[in-house]
Amino acid sequence: MARIGVLLSGCGVLDGSEIHESVLTLLSLDRAGAEALCMAPDVTQREVANHLTGAPVAGETRNCLVEAARIARGNIRDLATVKADEIDGLILPGGYGAAKNLSDFAAAGEKAKPHPEVARLVLEMAKAGKPIGAICIAPATVAAILGKNGIRASVTVGNEKGTAARIVAMGCAHEDRRVREVCVDRDARVVSTPAYMLATRIGEAAEGIEKLVREVLSLVPKPAAVGR
Amino acid sequence: MARIGVLLSGCGVLDGSEIHESVLTLLSLDRAGAEALCMAPDVTQREVANHLTGAPVAGETRNCLVEAARIARGNIRDLATVKADEIDGLILPGGYGAAKNLSDFAAAGEKAKPHPEVARLVLEMAKAGKPIGAICIAPATVAAILGKNGIRASVTVGNEKGTAARIVAMGCAHEDRRVREVCVDRDARVVSTPAYMLATRIGEAAEGIEKLVREVLSLVPKPAAVGR
Repeated sequence: MARIGVLLSGCGVLDGSEIHESVLTLLSLDRAGAEALCMAPDVTQREVANHLTGAPVAGETRNCLVEAARIARGNIRDLATVKADEIDGLILPGGYGAAKNLSDFAAAGEKAKPHPEVARLVLEMAKAGKPIGAICIAPATVAAILGKNGIRASVTVGNEKGTAARIVAMGCAHEDRRVREVCVDRDARVVSTPAYMLATRIGEAAEGIEKLVREVLSLVPKPAAVGR
Repeated sequence: MARIGVLLSGCGVLDGSEIHESVLTLLSLDRAGAEALCMAPDVTQREVANHLTGAPVAGETRNCLVEAARIARGNIRDLATVKADEIDGLILPGGYGAAKNLSDFAAAGEKAKPHPEVARLVLEMAKAGKPIGAICIAPATVAAILGKNGIRASVTVGNEKGTAARIVAMGCAHEDRRVREVCVDRDARVVSTPAYMLATRIGEAAEGIEKLVREVLSLVPKPAAVGR
């Protein structure tokens, strides 16, 4: 059974992990016979948003790991304790948290700096030849790590020109995809899908995420990771 | 296209709606060609729980509607504004919020009092002959409304004897079910499934919830509700 890391960034599309994308990732992994290992950085969220109004909440703070534990039903690890040799692949669901908490791409664009533990694990995965899946806006954070380390992965965020240009500026390539499609870079072992960058219904996001999970699992190196 | 209300109670299994059950309900509705209308009461949650440790958080307050908006991606209504003639059926996902915020069943047991707007909408649905779906612990809150109003619905919470006895004490009946099964009361038009009362994997909860959504849709009165 493959064990796939799911890197969360909070709980809610505006300030953390997009909840539907995260749950659909866990469902798709389970249905494909894979085990999920949820994780998140133990760091204060960049902001807290009121999801009823869409506005930031002044003066309130929440912790990425504690909030992500809601999605993981408490079964979650501090990212800092997870090494690449424990997992066969890594998937980053989207939501603005992927571009606010896992890196500062939402504010800094192509000058984005990733959270150091996110960069450490993504580079460990790349070095080990293990696949990475990135959903919605998460490819921007993956590009901020891989592109700036000389790995020119092709990814998609759908067809958003501004974000695509910033991905290119960080040293990766962007390919337009429709909502139910995936972008598969077999050399860099990176799989991406637009999900709620484009989805107008949960079923659309689900179809792309199911395909992403299948592609990630197909790229898991064989034989399985040593040490287990 | 049927329009089904999804009554949420926050965002997280320990103090609000169970996130997987809520998202799986939305996915199943979308894939069945139905429209979801998310709603939650505009009320302070009974508590806030740290989902990493499982412990209550002293001094922190959150609002059911504002937190449920995370699951609904902002597309949610205050329960108080929703009338039964707007929807063809109603589904209550589980999570302790269904027994802490939608009623006080978690604390009061068979003496549970429902939130008045929850009672109002559930009774409107019953009077109109429209189906109600209840997942996980939510059947206890539905029983606290229907049973105490003379509607002896049969429901399941899996096979938990204590909860089952309290459901009977409130004037309903309990039937044991396995995790992937549903309990369908065609007379009372109430459908229930154990989900995370019993599930050890998300795929198990998903199978029961898919069946529940199909049964709820099959019980929608024809022709569709007037006024639309």
